[in-house]
Amino acid sequence: LQYGDGVFTTARIRAGRPLLLERHLQRLDRDMQQLGYELSDLATVKSEAAALCQDIEHGVLKIIITRGAGERGYRPPTEIAPRRILQAVASADEKSRSDAAQHGIAMRVCRTRLGRNPALAGVKHLNRLEQVLARTEWRDPDIFEGLMLDSDGHVIETTQANVFFVRDGMLCTPALEACGVQGILRALVLEQADAWAMQIRCEDFMLDALLAADEVFITNCLAGVVPVCRLEDRTWQPGVLTRRFQAALTEFY
Amino acid sequence: LQYGDGVFTTARIRAGRPLLLERHLQRLDRDMQQLGYELSDLATVKSEAAALCQDIEHGVLKIIITRGAGERGYRPPTEIAPRRILQAVASADEKSRSDAAQHGIAMRVCRTRLGRNPALAGVKHLNRLEQVLARTEWRDPDIFEGLMLDSDGHVIETTQANVFFVRDGMLCTPALEACGVQGILRALVLEQADAWAMQIRCEDFMLDALLAADEVFITNCLAGVVPVCRLEDRTWQPGVLTRRFQAALTEFY
Repeated sequence: LQYGDGVFTTARIRAGRPLLLERHLQRLDRDMQQLGYELSDLATVKSEAAALCQDIEHGVLKIIITRGAGERGYRPPTEIAPRRILQAVASADEKSRSDAAQHGIAMRVCRTRLGRNPALAGVKHLNRLEQVLARTEWRDPDIFEGLMLDSDGHVIETTQANVFFVRDGMLCTPALEACGVQGILRALVLEQADAWAMQIRCEDFMLDALLAADEVFITNCLAGVVPVCRLEDRTWQPGVLTRRFQAALTEFY
Repeated sequence: LQYGDGVFTTARIRAGRPLLLERHLQRLDRDMQQLGYELSDLATVKSEAAALCQDIEHGVLKIIITRGAGERGYRPPTEIAPRRILQAVASADEKSRSDAAQHGIAMRVCRTRLGRNPALAGVKHLNRLEQVLARTEWRDPDIFEGLMLDSDGHVIETTQANVFFVRDGMLCTPALEACGVQGILRALVLEQADAWAMQIRCEDFMLDALLAADEVFITNCLAGVVPVCRLEDRTWQPGVLTRRFQAALTEFY
């Protein structure tokens, strides 16, 4: 934890069960592999997670798996013994959550940029200082999220969610090859779009491409598919395709 | 600690005292300010540090100051209560340390790059995953350090030290405006060079500039001023100016 040398995931708890738990475990596994370690015993994490959540109606499960303890200095030990931290909390904000999904949210563009590093791109690791700094930029409760660009000005994601937009019926989302988190709901949206035989563009986009969109929405496993109704001065109505994704994926969040 | 949202510093302990403690506290203070929080009570940290070190002949003092606990999510609380973690350990590697300073060390170029982020540049923060990944790249005990470039290919620093080189009598070091740590010994070297009225170039350098150097050395508060005698296939002898900096700053490490 002193170096942020670990991965994490956050799952929504509904009726005593963490949703998409298999996907979360797969993502932890993939992310650990990208950082060069693994936890052989993910089955234990699975049963611990299930036990932690069983009395929670609505809530959030967070699982952290660090590389484990080492000597002083950055060099990991030869024998790696990863450590896990599981935390389940009941949430009280179901109303604002459903309001966001129904009416859409307002977003700003953050000044804090994301550094580009392909070795870490996609991974939900514990080096989250950029997101913390971005989140300190506003206190206006009407602003639900902040859009983050990378150091070259590409649109990447928000502080806690992936971003999609629709232009001329085509589904667009940043490629995340130099930074950003490969979200689980992002993958489900792309799989659904594929099942619908939608045209998909997954590449680098500048802010003007997003501002020229017909629909914009953000996704994560806690909030689901959330329409963006305002980004700085630009406004939208929740779009038809956004509503279709919400309807198709509602069981997952 | 779950986000790496904090700063740290490591001081050398000699004869029961942490060296350059005032500088370390100043650096912690400056770094916290850059991240948007402060610890009013640095005097307590100072006395705690002194007490921790008093029975240690040779060793390392590490001070971590995090932003403190918050709610779930990246948004820091309105009332910030920073937390401190102090750790002092005796070190057993005085021999290899003095060997490095005397005979110089071998270095490799790391594949892992540093992401560019001016908001974090210079700060010794807890997001150190890039350094951990870089340090996993080699196990050869003859390689003392790994040189890190940024995502644009500029020379920045090593995994644990700042880097200097001399070309035609001019002292050169990377500017660290987009990434890297502003080391305390780096500042002392620059102050000393200024006192000697040396010409100094503090700007962006590519790897070929370093390879064309007459002398190369690295600096940190634990190892001091250390000559680089090999970088990949290029070799050097410990240089005259490197020895002058060692002699001038020896009281500080």
